[in-house]
Amino acid sequence: MVRITIWNEFVHETSNEKVKAIYPRGIHGALAEGLRGEGRTLRTATLREPEHGLTEEALRDTDVLVWWGHMAHEEVSDAIVDRVHARVLEGMGLIVLHSAHGSKIFRKLMGTQTGRLKWREADEKERLWVVKPSHPIARGLPEAFELEREEMYGEHFDVPDPEELVFVSWFQGGEVFRSGLTYTRGKGRVFYFRPGHESYPTYYDPHVLRVISNACDWAAPGDSPDVSYGHVPSPMEPIR
Amino acid sequence: MVRITIWNEFVHETSNEKVKAIYPRGIHGALAEGLRGEGRTLRTATLREPEHGLTEEALRDTDVLVWWGHMAHEEVSDAIVDRVHARVLEGMGLIVLHSAHGSKIFRKLMGTQTGRLKWREADEKERLWVVKPSHPIARGLPEAFELEREEMYGEHFDVPDPEELVFVSWFQGGEVFRSGLTYTRGKGRVFYFRPGHESYPTYYDPHVLRVISNACDWAAPGDSPDVSYGHVPSPMEPIR
Amino acid sequence: MVRITIWNEFVHETSNEKVKAIYPRGIHGALAEGLRGEGRTLRTATLREPEHGLTEEALRDTDVLVWWGHMAHEEVSDAIVDRVHARVLEGMGLIVLHSAHGSKIFRKLMGTQTGRLKWREADEKERLWVVKPSHPIARGLPEAFELEREEMYGEHFDVPDPEELVFVSWFQGGEVFRSGLTYTRGKGRVFYFRPGHESYPTYYDPHVLRVISNACDWAAPGDSPDVSYGHVPSPMEPIR
Amino acid sequence: MVRITIWNEFVHETSNEKVKAIYPRGIHGALAEGLRGEGRTLRTATLREPEHGLTEEALRDTDVLVWWGHMAHEEVSDAIVDRVHARVLEGMGLIVLHSAHGSKIFRKLMGTQTGRLKWREADEKERLWVVKPSHPIARGLPEAFELEREEMYGEHFDVPDPEELVFVSWFQGGEVFRSGLTYTRGKGRVFYFRPGHESYPTYYDPHVLRVISNACDWAAPGDSPDVSYGHVPSPMEPIR
Repeated sequence: MVRITIWNEFVHETSNEKVKAIYPRGIHGALAEGLRGEGRTLRTATLREPEHGLTEEALRDTDVLVWWGHMAHEEVSDAIVDRVHARVLEGMGLIVLHSAHGSKIFRKLMGTQTGRLKWREADEKERLWVVKPSHPIARGLPEAFELEREEMYGEHFDVPDPEELVFVSWFQGGEVFRSGLTYTRGKGRVFYFRPGHESYPTYYDPHVLRVISNACDWAAPGDSPDVSYGHVPSPMEPIR
Repeated sequence: MVRITIWNEFVHETSNEKVKAIYPRGIHGALAEGLRGEGRTLRTATLREPEHGLTEEALRDTDVLVWWGHMAHEEVSDAIVDRVHARVLEGMGLIVLHSAHGSKIFRKLMGTQTGRLKWREADEKERLWVVKPSHPIARGLPEAFELEREEMYGEHFDVPDPEELVFVSWFQGGEVFRSGLTYTRGKGRVFYFRPGHESYPTYYDPHVLRVISNACDWAAPGDSPDVSYGHVPSPMEPIR
Repeated sequence: MVRITIWNEFVHETSNEKVKAIYPRGIHGALAEGLRGEGRTLRTATLREPEHGLTEEALRDTDVLVWWGHMAHEEVSDAIVDRVHARVLEGMGLIVLHSAHGSKIFRKLMGTQTGRLKWREADEKERLWVVKPSHPIARGLPEAFELEREEMYGEHFDVPDPEELVFVSWFQGGEVFRSGLTYTRGKGRVFYFRPGHESYPTYYDPHVLRVISNACDWAAPGDSPDVSYGHVPSPMEPIR
Repeated sequence: MVRITIWNEFVHETSNEKVKAIYPRGIHGALAEGLRGEGRTLRTATLREPEHGLTEEALRDTDVLVWWGHMAHEEVSDAIVDRVHARVLEGMGLIVLHSAHGSKIFRKLMGTQTGRLKWREADEKERLWVVKPSHPIARGLPEAFELEREEMYGEHFDVPDPEELVFVSWFQGGEVFRSGLTYTRGKGRVFYFRPGHESYPTYYDPHVLRVISNACDWAAPGDSPDVSYGHVPSPMEPIR
């Protein structure tokens, strides 16, 4: 059983009529609906809830956290960011969506603290190409898929080289973007996925949902070794 | 259902009494016994069978191929090596054990064509340390485990940098070795795992079996994208 | 002093008037002219010379080999390919250009033996984006540069994941391509660079020349450790 | 000309007689002496200087910063850490030595914020093996070298997978450690190198000095592309 928590800033949907029309139940609501499936539980949490909905208990009961944020990154409390960070190091998976490249948690995990990129809102076509077809996150997809209108994100994307590059995006206006990236931090697996501007119905797209769903499976923690740190005596005892 | 085929040279066990005593049913027999589990089928194939037991049909019905060879690498026919190679590119997983670093198939897949390393048979203790605890191949293991006596393999190991380094071995005599390495070739996932000299009962060790079992799960192909190559017309049609 | 040898198939330029008009001295001639600089010597070699111009002596005196081939890959003798391969493992750098993705030497070094990709000849614009600006091969370049007309190469490019991804290409028709890739094989450094179809004057472009020039510097061997392989006695003597 | 600044905490050497006897001019003094060479300038900075010796001007005039710290990591001001961090992203190289795995700057750059590992002070022999002989940081070294007595550091080392793994250490007591690791953050190159406990004369060892010297050359910034971020207009103008 994979326990997924979808975290959404949930500010655009309450303050902008156009966005509200696209996501009447919020981006988190659309994702919770789209990611439903056997062998998993889904719950949501949002910025304006107490502790942003990310209490110690909520995180302890989360295997994979999906994160969407944009205009209110700075409203997320540092204490909660540290709590999420600690859980990632312990093994919780983290799926970082679209403008969450600028979220405190992603910047902290990357070490660059910037997550800078180019952007343009011009209703452009995005075509995502699979560049690592063997990857579990690419399962069930065609070799490429399109989003008719999306915000453009362009290189250079100021993040560390990913461990694995799964997708590269082509944009009509002339840019490319490394749009599906994997990382490990501590025991936690992190996946960044580019699409999902709030003014487009991207999170209803079946390919996009398939990617995020695959990523949740990929990032779910297993029975990983119990690793110890700190002082060790000498000579070491034989290990059994 | 993961369909596993264990390929073994099966020459030491028939020509050397000491090895025969350790592996009376062959290394393949020990592995077939040790890797049994729900959700998988196991069969074996050996060098002296027609087509080395690796007919077109046998390979088509194999999701993951485990390979052990040592003294008779050159007896493996190039045509069969090409057949296995083609299946790996199509998506079949390949688990390469111990002295199979020198096998034709591994050398061909690596591109270095050598797989050179240092070695010594001196009944030394090997301690394997997990250096990537988040990796699926490390599941269910302690952070390190020991083999009381093994052949030593030492760096430099002349292979391309792995995509992921899962284990590093320590040897009593002063050497280290990158002993668990992952690669992708085409759609196929490849895992090299160091332990398993024929004169030690290594393939009865529960930790070793756990690693190989995990590797079979990790390397099993999924529903990966159908990738096309060659000439494409212009302008491209919209992709749906 | 970096000793560079530029190898060119030199068949298109002698059999096709259009190509001849663009490269009257051959692609190798254009590259030899464009790569001239302090601290380096340049010579050329072509397919139809004895031993393809790649004698034992010529290779021994080469630090970096630049390779362009296309229609006559199969005419390159296996013995010469093995000779080049051995020199790469010893430390010679190799710069693989454009359609040489299908050359015997590149396919052998990659281990996939295919180097497959998509292609289209439609006078399309290519825009190359730097995705790793810290890389020595990107020195002196803008963050992106254009080639007004080039052959399109599209993903999936069937090569192992590169160690470093330096450039990603955007094509007008909707494709992307990982167009600057680094690998290590043995002690040798390998760089694949996409542009350079024979029917366009690509190898006169100052940005393209800068990339290839930087790559020659990057790939030139240094005073690397003298690595030993094979049997080692026990116990090891202290190393001084 | 490579401008190197060696930063040292310089607390052990002033408070512990044994350490003072080994490094009478401080670890920074020993390194400044040992790293001297043509084509480079060397200066030092220490914790107790104003702004820890790392003023805006000092950092602007630094190409590569070498960092040693241990017992006083928390005394380093966050503002100076942010300043160093910003300079790394701009392209300044950073060489992180030994116990500086726990420094604020390294933890911030890694994204794990821990840099945890195992350790033991038991006068053990360390043997460092080159696992990537093609790497510029390994130039001029033997394939392995020994330090007769060092502090032990053991896996798991809680850092992101390195881009390149250059050295692996063997310790007498049974541990291994990935002891030479490269990373990129922004345009800056980062190298972590394990040896150098304050109670041993490690920074007089010619192999250790050679590694650090090579790393300074490797990490020095070049003329990298001027990368822009933020909003870009549409349609893009042709790039020249």
